[in-house]
Amino acid sequence: MRYNNLDRTAVYGRLVEATKAYSGFDFRQKLNAARVAGFSVPIADTLVYNWAAKKIDDDIVALLQELANEQELTAKYRALLDGEVMNTGENRKVLHQLLRGQLGKDVVADGKNIGEFYRKELLRFSSFADDVRSGRIQGSTGKKFGYVVQIGIGGSDLGPRALYIALENWALKEGITPAIKAKFISNVDPDDASAVLNSVQLGETLFVLVSKSGTTQETLANELFVKDKLLKAGLDASRHIVAVTSETSPLAHNSTYLDSFYIDDFIGGRYSSSSSVGGVVLSLAFGPAVFKEFLAGAHEADRGALEPDIRRNAAMLDALIGVWERNFLGLPYTAVLPYSQALSRFPAHLQQLDMESNGKRVNRDGEPVSYATGPVVFGEPGTNGQHSFYQLLHQGTDIVPLQFIGFNESQLDDDVVVDGSTSMTKLKANLAAQIVAFAKGQDDINPNKQFTGGRPSSLVYGKRLTPRVLGSLLAHFENKVMFQGFVWNLNSFDQEGVQLGKILTKKVLSGNSGDDALDAYSKLLGC
Amino acid sequence: MRYNNLDRTAVYGRLVEATKAYSGFDFRQKLNAARVAGFSVPIADTLVYNWAAKKIDDDIVALLQELANEQELTAKYRALLDGEVMNTGENRKVLHQLLRGQLGKDVVADGKNIGEFYRKELLRFSSFADDVRSGRIQGSTGKKFGYVVQIGIGGSDLGPRALYIALENWALKEGITPAIKAKFISNVDPDDASAVLNSVQLGETLFVLVSKSGTTQETLANELFVKDKLLKAGLDASRHIVAVTSETSPLAHNSTYLDSFYIDDFIGGRYSSSSSVGGVVLSLAFGPAVFKEFLAGAHEADRGALEPDIRRNAAMLDALIGVWERNFLGLPYTAVLPYSQALSRFPAHLQQLDMESNGKRVNRDGEPVSYATGPVVFGEPGTNGQHSFYQLLHQGTDIVPLQFIGFNESQLDDDVVVDGSTSMTKLKANLAAQIVAFAKGQDDINPNKQFTGGRPSSLVYGKRLTPRVLGSLLAHFENKVMFQGFVWNLNSFDQEGVQLGKILTKKVLSGNSGDDALDAYSKLLGC
Repeated sequence: MRYNNLDRTAVYGRLVEATKAYSGFDFRQKLNAARVAGFSVPIADTLVYNWAAKKIDDDIVALLQELANEQELTAKYRALLDGEVMNTGENRKVLHQLLRGQLGKDVVADGKNIGEFYRKELLRFSSFADDVRSGRIQGSTGKKFGYVVQIGIGGSDLGPRALYIALENWALKEGITPAIKAKFISNVDPDDASAVLNSVQLGETLFVLVSKSGTTQETLANELFVKDKLLKAGLDASRHIVAVTSETSPLAHNSTYLDSFYIDDFIGGRYSSSSSVGGVVLSLAFGPAVFKEFLAGAHEADRGALEPDIRRNAAMLDALIGVWERNFLGLPYTAVLPYSQALSRFPAHLQQLDMESNGKRVNRDGEPVSYATGPVVFGEPGTNGQHSFYQLLHQGTDIVPLQFIGFNESQLDDDVVVDGSTSMTKLKANLAAQIVAFAKGQDDINPNKQFTGGRPSSLVYGKRLTPRVLGSLLAHFENKVMFQGFVWNLNSFDQEGVQLGKILTKKVLSGNSGDDALDAYSKLLGC
Repeated sequence: MRYNNLDRTAVYGRLVEATKAYSGFDFRQKLNAARVAGFSVPIADTLVYNWAAKKIDDDIVALLQELANEQELTAKYRALLDGEVMNTGENRKVLHQLLRGQLGKDVVADGKNIGEFYRKELLRFSSFADDVRSGRIQGSTGKKFGYVVQIGIGGSDLGPRALYIALENWALKEGITPAIKAKFISNVDPDDASAVLNSVQLGETLFVLVSKSGTTQETLANELFVKDKLLKAGLDASRHIVAVTSETSPLAHNSTYLDSFYIDDFIGGRYSSSSSVGGVVLSLAFGPAVFKEFLAGAHEADRGALEPDIRRNAAMLDALIGVWERNFLGLPYTAVLPYSQALSRFPAHLQQLDMESNGKRVNRDGEPVSYATGPVVFGEPGTNGQHSFYQLLHQGTDIVPLQFIGFNESQLDDDVVVDGSTSMTKLKANLAAQIVAFAKGQDDINPNKQFTGGRPSSLVYGKRLTPRVLGSLLAHFENKVMFQGFVWNLNSFDQEGVQLGKILTKKVLSGNSGDDALDAYSKLLGC
């Protein structure tokens, strides 16, 4: 397999050349019903990617297909699935797709079949969740657990939290019982843990302590914060905390936890929602069957991402269109805009997934690249965003590519008819209207009311946001980010950029920072 | 007064010229204790803006002062305070600062003294809040109100919500009673209203219906959603809803509401947190005295923003440094990074404030400008973000200017010592470390572990996040955005960019969109 920088590919120059013709790209002429109907690719049975409102025509699709072929995207994905070391800097395999099902060879490391290990942990925490939900496992007060509080940060927080919020109302509607409420403590700001603990019944709370390394400063501080409160409440902490960590971590095999579930170094934090990092809390909250549905949906999208024809591979096409926009049209951001209140924290998770994976200035061999890599990703749910930052998206001086997400049905199916339409219909009408407004704009004699249009978007849509659909949705974006990393020739699976801050923080806390500016800032803040 | 485009100012060319010298700007040499100590400007007694880690030296400050003078920033601010029509497109005055106190002449419109009107409404809703909090006003069940639910979107949601979250734990610590819990319904997605109503006791809930125009689609739909639920619960809606609107709106003077409080067209939605839009819900939740403290803090920052010397005017300096970064260093985004869990939704509010105000491509006279205006604004609280998108901020191919916010003390004062330091000290040590890490970077023989540094940030800091400090903080950013609008010669107070989507939505809902692509999207989504 060949690892090559984007700007050393044969097709690169032709893509640069092709941008010239695209200043004249006119959605008012191009975007019609036939294009909308024809530019859809399934992500999974239940979810579709539509790219009709992207600034792209057949000629560019053909060049992007060449780029996909030249960068060997499918072969690299297959190699990753087969267990090749794709996280080169840290000398690790990358196996989050294996958590959802096996698409490649058996992966063996240190004599251990990794797929079997993942399946065993899934069984173990499923069984544990069943025991908690049925009341067979209880807290030290002899009461059933009514709350689960995840203690973790970054990948141990954003993904699981976004997924929990995405399914909370769905589970209510489906009548899933018992209703165990999940909460999350992440920040080292003590007000975070304190406020969460003020909102639960401590005696009925099970804590899930999540740190792969077992050394995360925030998480260890919050663990002791919680243990201190349990102690003061006269509760036995060892019956209120389970650990999710790697087997080599200082937290592993510790009998002072009620139980422990394991991941390994082949699961990156931001890719860990499908592991016990997301699985324990979601299985406790909704039951293991729900989490397995989520995994099945993700697995289906993973399988679809193997297709080499980019017109039939939504994740790969989405990735390549993103590269087209970033490197050739020169657009440095992407807005994620779900028209679904349930996905209110999904943009924050994608922000981590994307920016932490591909926010890199050196390639996988450590050489600086001379082209732009990962964009800034941000977003809020629609229609809320329409009354906020959409002003800039419509009429700002710069163009921001948009990624819309929408569903045919609400989750709770609790609605009202006003002026002849339900709120759900209004929500969808707004979404359709925005796509066309951004693309086509509108002329007006008053320049302040003029919309230039030409602002590209894509739409991911499905029938209803269920666990299965959510799995497909998450896997779609994970695979998109992976393919972009391959195009840019990055290692998308490490995060060296987070290290320096940790080192300097330790120096401040040790009282010997070795830098007078750092001391001065510490003094301002009263460290 | 002269209104002039940025690139037609006399100093513009010299600022362009000056950028050449700045490629060699080296924080490792420049950023020392003296610079950190010397580059602070008070925003108010209790809050400070520090710009030591911005890529700027005396020569640029001098040019920016010239720019401030040439664009007559102070004179324009004074004119705004005195009631000149600054929202030219809509022919409206801009008077949100007057909500906090009077700094200019008496402002009279249609024979009415506007300051008196604002003070009267403040008195009215303060008295109403006292009556609700004391139990003199009760719901139709004869129970005290224990919940207040704001129904509003955009400016009627993001600011009040961010401020409520910012003070919720402070109020708990201060023992403010009764503890009336606030919730917010914004999205037209019916799952939003449904989930919020599932989380309250309807008989003990007071709704605050907020729409200046009284025609906001989402808010009217949610009003009927709520009324339908009140009816079904056998409750008298007219004793559970108050309206906040303008006196000319269809919602005004309507006896089917328990009471009504008024704003006017001189208060833009995103600037309305200081009006009854924010005041009613915050006074109900925390008592009117707390809201008045907030206003006092904002007023103090408004007064400080009158200073013409940019070295002594934090809002103006912050604004001009932003222009330096956006137009001369060419950086198209800003990240807002509060090291305070209480400010978790403050970035979402600033995102609206900034992007809706200055995301414009035509100047105040409707002529297209040929320079960049408002940046993309995004952010999440630290330390959470450190484990997420900071990778890109540290090692991405592009530079993102950073706006840190931090405090000496936590709000709840509930903490734990781990490894010799409290969580609050760890939080602050992380913040100090990040500023220096971004600025100075670090060499490493392994390019993957190298940090180029040169990534600029500013720091807003104070002792503790109290209502007064929160007021100063909000006003600082409002005034910053206002000054940037003056520099760019924009009308920062309208939002024509949100109109087209509304028009097309109505067309979809009427069944006659007149655009086959729009019909096709509506069909995909099942409208």
